Amino acid sequence: METENKIIKNRLEQLRKKMKENGIDYYMIPTSDFHNSEYAADFFKTREYFCGFDGSNGTLVVSDKEAGLWTDGRYFIQAENQLAGTGVILYKMGEEGVPSIDEYLEDKMNLGEVLGFDGRVVSAEIGEELEKRLKNKKAEFKIGKDLAEEVWTGRPALPCHDMYVLSDELCGKSFKEKLNDVRAKMKKYGTSMHLLSKLDDIMWLTNLRGNDVECNPVALSYAIITDDMFILFVQKEEVTDEVRAYCEKNDIVLKEYAEYAEYMSELVFTGNVLFDKRNTNYLTFKLLSDKAKAAGFETVDKKDPTELMKAVKNETELKNIREVYLKDSAKLTEFIYWVKENVGKIPMTEYSAAMKLDGMRAQIPGFIELSFPTISAYNANAAMAHYEATEDNAAEVKPQGMLLVDSGATYMGGTTDVTRTIVVGEISDEIKKHYTATVSGMLELADAVFKDGCTGRNVDIYARRALWDIGIDYNHGTGHGIGYMLNVHEGPQGIRWKYAEGASEALLKPGMIVSDEPGVYIEGSHGIRIENIVEVVSRNENEYGKFYGFDHLTYVPIDLEAIDKKYMKPDAVKLLNEYHKAVYDRISPLIEDENVKAWLKDATREI
Amino acid sequence: METENKIIKNRLEQLRKKMKENGIDYYMIPTSDFHNSEYAADFFKTREYFCGFDGSNGTLVVSDKEAGLWTDGRYFIQAENQLAGTGVILYKMGEEGVPSIDEYLEDKMNLGEVLGFDGRVVSAEIGEELEKRLKNKKAEFKIGKDLAEEVWTGRPALPCHDMYVLSDELCGKSFKEKLNDVRAKMKKYGTSMHLLSKLDDIMWLTNLRGNDVECNPVALSYAIITDDMFILFVQKEEVTDEVRAYCEKNDIVLKEYAEYAEYMSELVFTGNVLFDKRNTNYLTFKLLSDKAKAAGFETVDKKDPTELMKAVKNETELKNIREVYLKDSAKLTEFIYWVKENVGKIPMTEYSAAMKLDGMRAQIPGFIELSFPTISAYNANAAMAHYEATEDNAAEVKPQGMLLVDSGATYMGGTTDVTRTIVVGEISDEIKKHYTATVSGMLELADAVFKDGCTGRNVDIYARRALWDIGIDYNHGTGHGIGYMLNVHEGPQGIRWKYAEGASEALLKPGMIVSDEPGVYIEGSHGIRIENIVEVVSRNENEYGKFYGFDHLTYVPIDLEAIDKKYMKPDAVKLLNEYHKAVYDRISPLIEDENVKAWLKDATREI
Repeated sequence: METENKIIKNRLEQLRKKMKENGIDYYMIPTSDFHNSEYAADFFKTREYFCGFDGSNGTLVVSDKEAGLWTDGRYFIQAENQLAGTGVILYKMGEEGVPSIDEYLEDKMNLGEVLGFDGRVVSAEIGEELEKRLKNKKAEFKIGKDLAEEVWTGRPALPCHDMYVLSDELCGKSFKEKLNDVRAKMKKYGTSMHLLSKLDDIMWLTNLRGNDVECNPVALSYAIITDDMFILFVQKEEVTDEVRAYCEKNDIVLKEYAEYAEYMSELVFTGNVLFDKRNTNYLTFKLLSDKAKAAGFETVDKKDPTELMKAVKNETELKNIREVYLKDSAKLTEFIYWVKENVGKIPMTEYSAAMKLDGMRAQIPGFIELSFPTISAYNANAAMAHYEATEDNAAEVKPQGMLLVDSGATYMGGTTDVTRTIVVGEISDEIKKHYTATVSGMLELADAVFKDGCTGRNVDIYARRALWDIGIDYNHGTGHGIGYMLNVHEGPQGIRWKYAEGASEALLKPGMIVSDEPGVYIEGSHGIRIENIVEVVSRNENEYGKFYGFDHLTYVPIDLEAIDKKYMKPDAVKLLNEYHKAVYDRISPLIEDENVKAWLKDATREI
Repeated sequence: METENKIIKNRLEQLRKKMKENGIDYYMIPTSDFHNSEYAADFFKTREYFCGFDGSNGTLVVSDKEAGLWTDGRYFIQAENQLAGTGVILYKMGEEGVPSIDEYLEDKMNLGEVLGFDGRVVSAEIGEELEKRLKNKKAEFKIGKDLAEEVWTGRPALPCHDMYVLSDELCGKSFKEKLNDVRAKMKKYGTSMHLLSKLDDIMWLTNLRGNDVECNPVALSYAIITDDMFILFVQKEEVTDEVRAYCEKNDIVLKEYAEYAEYMSELVFTGNVLFDKRNTNYLTFKLLSDKAKAAGFETVDKKDPTELMKAVKNETELKNIREVYLKDSAKLTEFIYWVKENVGKIPMTEYSAAMKLDGMRAQIPGFIELSFPTISAYNANAAMAHYEATEDNAAEVKPQGMLLVDSGATYMGGTTDVTRTIVVGEISDEIKKHYTATVSGMLELADAVFKDGCTGRNVDIYARRALWDIGIDYNHGTGHGIGYMLNVHEGPQGIRWKYAEGASEALLKPGMIVSDEPGVYIEGSHGIRIENIVEVVSRNENEYGKFYGFDHLTYVPIDLEAIDKKYMKPDAVKLLNEYHKAVYDRISPLIEDENVKAWLKDATREI
């Protein structure tokens, strides 16, 4: 018999009281900050507070009668355990017969009942979907209040860390120049105001950085751009003297982050407003739509102009990125040597190995923070998509099999991301076959030549060819964009193969950088991923058009102990040898330890 | 000074008189039959009758004051010559400052004026575009009358040829079975009536064939499908006793083709109507929309259900296709031998060579007709996209350079399409480089392995890789579907690379057949195209999904005289040798002449 979870039950009762006070029949709590960032800070973990489930994906819906939690297959077991005794019902997303939240609400809500949620943590898309779904129920929406505010005692504070300024020399383009480009786009779309909610876009545009989201060097912020004004909403406590002086010099009007919604609701519109629905929360979306309508203007939903500008790195950014990637590659190379030298000799776990690597990276001059929590996964653990070793729960790395390490950092001069799967002992012939095919894929994609007009969908097949040839696939995209001293996952470009009717694809353009990361995941046995970051470069231009290719940014040896030439096409062998020659030529000058250098020479030998 | 073209001027005057009688201010004459078929019969060449220009693409617009002809870059010179003295103004489509027809009409038409055209020869899309464009002009549309009817003396008759019945054994699926599948789709879309206007879809569905469109074995027809009726509109004179008996047996209600519009306008709708806007002319589209609206029902615009059913060939069709392709391949092989043996010895022109090949094909048992006019182009002529040799205007084929031959036929059992570029004498090293890359592309695409969910855009890059590597591209798609005893160009699948936002792409599915035809076109010098037809086949199915590949249907030697291994990757050399071995194994048993057989042995030797 399960014990009652009185703490959670009590919290839910308090919430229900608040719901009643506010005339709310159903209250929905998803997991997001106000900007749909990749990581939500503790302040935003309201759902965890009210039900106890702490997985990364989950939405709680509470009514007078019941409470339900929706989560996906990764978390079914964990959620069952954590919800035990709370009375909260687990809705297993994707399982047959299990209603989605929309369906649940449509089914349960009575005519004219009220749905409440904090409109800042729900995307415009999901909000609109709910509107449509509950239209027949004549449901009312109350989205202006975060009910947790009055209930959650001891709630962690909103993240609030000092912002800092990047020099124009480091960014290659000043804020004012970037702003001119954005204003030109606003004009092109016939708009005189532009609302920007996406944190990395705001950071890129202002050449400012912050530290409010885990692993993302961004400050919680909104920006309103007009033809003659630039208003930046940030927490005043984050504004250092340096930042204040910079803003004054650049005519950036600073306003308090918390006052953004009020400011918006009082703003008088004088023209059409440009915004990007994908990056706008539902509350902002409703405010914008209502106010534009009231003033007789239109909201123009287009991709944020900053998105593409940010994705195509400028010459300064590229120069810095190339340098940073060499340093980062050299450090990872030293780490691989360390693993191979020490495995079986010293105590080593997935976690301690990750700590070792993180520590080594932190020694690189200009290191700011990790670009994401280092993934360190041993043998079968590497086959699990979202495996995360913790200090208390990490496998011991023994001299047998392989250790997959996916890691990166943000430095002054760039953000890195790289995966290597390191042989630490004996491996089977099957593993070699899988490893060799993965490496072939990574190298063949990087070797692609493609014309202007191509998107990631045109070239993805190169990364998968060797795997598809042997009837294997990986269930994730091949590549994502990477920010410049910004988020490790950045759009709009990507390398994926699946067709979705009507889906938008971004053209690959010189100056974009993108990951190239095929893999093999055999449940209960092993996981392999090899990830390089590559830069889109111009190869040729003639009467047939513009021809592009990729240059490697990552130069880290690929483990020859797991390569068997009999599983490799001659063309791929050639690519591997060429790559390894380049690795040695570029990385060995950065490595001081003669033992590592000698090892690198051998590790990059021609096969 | 140019001479006045009194004939044309007189015809235009007569047209203007009719326009006046009918209250029409502007009259538009495009070039199409009522079904947007690939080839328009002489009956439909109204535009040529009224202005003298006989290119394949052109639209004439006539008003009281002036007449203008719109055509594209291929025809600028020809149009200028043919319009001389007619007073008709040439509008060069795509040139800067030249208005489109929409723009022209928007500019010229006065408020409330009347635009007329035969609504049967204008697509729904173009008609709607005009509506939108001329809304502000409050333009009225008169689309019910073909004014040429009363003016064009000696007009060729509407094509009218005997229809014939294909046996269920030949088709693999009876009309009734296919009809059930279509009705299931109608039900799925919530419709109780379906209008089908696309000729090859109607032929595929009924297992009937006709001969009303050049090279397409189709009869001019419409079909109306309800839950319990199938009405086929054809010209009564085309209905042979065999066809009549077949229709009776299959509950196909025959009605007169000419009475279709009247029938439609009197039809009482009893439910929603399924149609495919892409395949519907503007008159039909308006009739459907108006009548559905009047009856309180909806028109459901979806892809014709027949399109995908027709594209995925059944086992019987595939078996017959494979056989037919072998016979066709053997014949083309004999032709290549004939060209090589006779060039420089007998008089040979592009035209006479094509005649020779057409005659050879006609000897194959089951030959019905060519699937398109044979393209035979020598040296530089092969670089021209729409080059067509005629008896009076054909280059002499000399023992120097290459002859490109793109050809095919419809037989009892399938429709073929194949291109080979034949070396007839000395060729440069550059040509060998281009030829070798083209061949690599054709073979590498055919070697693709791809997952269920892929479209042509995922694999196109394989056909272009070798060319893009050397900075060359071809300005056409890589592949199109092919009908079964039907049109040589058939949707919905295709192999193309260019991304177009929102464009629909068809998934590649086993049973589809598709062309694989990369090429190189160097203006003033040479043109190369190598085209095989391949079949999508299942290769593997496991926990990662369904893996597909292509099997060749075409087995014709690739000219080794133009291959230089130094321009070929080792993997491609292997593919070429494998392909040539298969060519010899499969084709040599079909070749009786020992000389040809001995030549074939050499022509398919390992390199």
